[in-house]
Amino acid sequence: MKKISIIKSNGAKDFFSPEKVANSLIRAGAGQDEAEKISQEVEKKIKNGDTTADIYRQAFFLLRRYGKPLAVRFSLKHAIMDLGPSGYPFEQLIGRILEKEGYKTSFPNVIFGKCVGHEVDVIAENSKEKIMIEAKFHNQPGFRTDVKVALYVRARFEDLIAVPKNNFSSCWLITNTKFSEDALKYARCAGVNAVGWGYPKEKGLENMIDASNLYPITAMPSLSRNEKRLLLDNNIVVCTDIKNIEKLVSIGIKKEKAEVCLKEALEITKANS
Amino acid sequence: MKKISIIKSNGAKDFFSPEKVANSLIRAGAGQDEAEKISQEVEKKIKNGDTTADIYRQAFFLLRRYGKPLAVRFSLKHAIMDLGPSGYPFEQLIGRILEKEGYKTSFPNVIFGKCVGHEVDVIAENSKEKIMIEAKFHNQPGFRTDVKVALYVRARFEDLIAVPKNNFSSCWLITNTKFSEDALKYARCAGVNAVGWGYPKEKGLENMIDASNLYPITAMPSLSRNEKRLLLDNNIVVCTDIKNIEKLVSIGIKKEKAEVCLKEALEITKANS
Repeated sequence: MKKISIIKSNGAKDFFSPEKVANSLIRAGAGQDEAEKISQEVEKKIKNGDTTADIYRQAFFLLRRYGKPLAVRFSLKHAIMDLGPSGYPFEQLIGRILEKEGYKTSFPNVIFGKCVGHEVDVIAENSKEKIMIEAKFHNQPGFRTDVKVALYVRARFEDLIAVPKNNFSSCWLITNTKFSEDALKYARCAGVNAVGWGYPKEKGLENMIDASNLYPITAMPSLSRNEKRLLLDNNIVVCTDIKNIEKLVSIGIKKEKAEVCLKEALEITKANS
Repeated sequence: MKKISIIKSNGAKDFFSPEKVANSLIRAGAGQDEAEKISQEVEKKIKNGDTTADIYRQAFFLLRRYGKPLAVRFSLKHAIMDLGPSGYPFEQLIGRILEKEGYKTSFPNVIFGKCVGHEVDVIAENSKEKIMIEAKFHNQPGFRTDVKVALYVRARFEDLIAVPKNNFSSCWLITNTKFSEDALKYARCAGVNAVGWGYPKEKGLENMIDASNLYPITAMPSLSRNEKRLLLDNNIVVCTDIKNIEKLVSIGIKKEKAEVCLKEALEITKANS
């Protein structure tokens, strides 16, 4: 079989590997057969000089034939990491999801506890509760949020509730990573509501995103890294924020790309609705 | 004036700068005149191809003429950083200092709190108190220990004292860095006894070391990086641990170097006694 030369995201050359694509698809939840079929189809379509982003996109679109939510899930983990390097867009995403769940959200920055002022990432409140949320963002794959984070979130919460007017009812720690075992054990025991990648089972971050249908714009395969940055810098964080072409053009996206982008955003958000 | 070519610790070449040496000395507490005189004397003694370590050593010995404690202080901050990369020798140093202050110390590793097991670095106890110590080591200059560390130390302490048999009376956070303002504010308010570089004023880490006369072996200019590592790996952490030449030779230090080393260790420890 001829070898197809592709370009990785760091600019280095590599050979296309159908196994790698299949494995990625399996990790995303595709069946073995499905994953192999898709990777073979991708192999037929790509050509020398294509980028891993092109391959990604092909796999993404083919995967949708087998189940649209799966296709988005496939890219979701990377898409969230692409929200970085700052944690701000991730905080925005968390805020949007909680709004959809009926909370009023705010991003207060500093709130004063008994001892010091704390940088609170997100506050979510409704008639019954007022939640202090630490949104812990990492853009390195393989990182685990450890017990020290759960500990300092708890201590921060203690310091904040020592001031009655702050009136927080609970503290959450939401991250895009997995947790260490001790972090989970401590969080459960000490009353820190932990949400991360795959945790709690069936109610982790990816499920919150699926349930709210709020996919980060970084999940859109048509956008380049710079275009993603442009959207994020303009507070366009989730696909449902993309409502018309004019808005995209006004912030500097080319008209043709804006059209593709709007179509893609609608497809992604329709996929799960 | 002729330029003298020297070799930096990373192997790169540079020209000798008397200003740099003088500035280092002034930072360490030498007066302007003193610093200039010493840097000029160093300049006379060094030759092409000498290393920064050689220069350091010359300045160190000359500085002692003007005040022996100052000379050790000159190298102390770097010496502590050289205890790394792992935090273990720093924990040992803290333990040794507290023993000198009359505590019995132990390095228990894991102690179970109400929720989880915690890695406690050092425990120091006497008839009146039992202290949980977090020894926070950094080998990057310029780093500040921030409020999150003070917060998690406090939460860890809370979790530990929720188990009565642990019986801790207080928690300390000892670091070789400076603290952020918020870290200090929180620590004072929440009852975390914070000790760092220059904090508390007159009772910071450098003062604890001066008072105990327990200088890390990494302060000895005669030792190469590898020799320092060899000593640390053999639990020879402070200069007073160096008592005879045989012990040094038995762990792999050459006899000639061991003789210099013993003399130097005695000089450093005598300097402050």
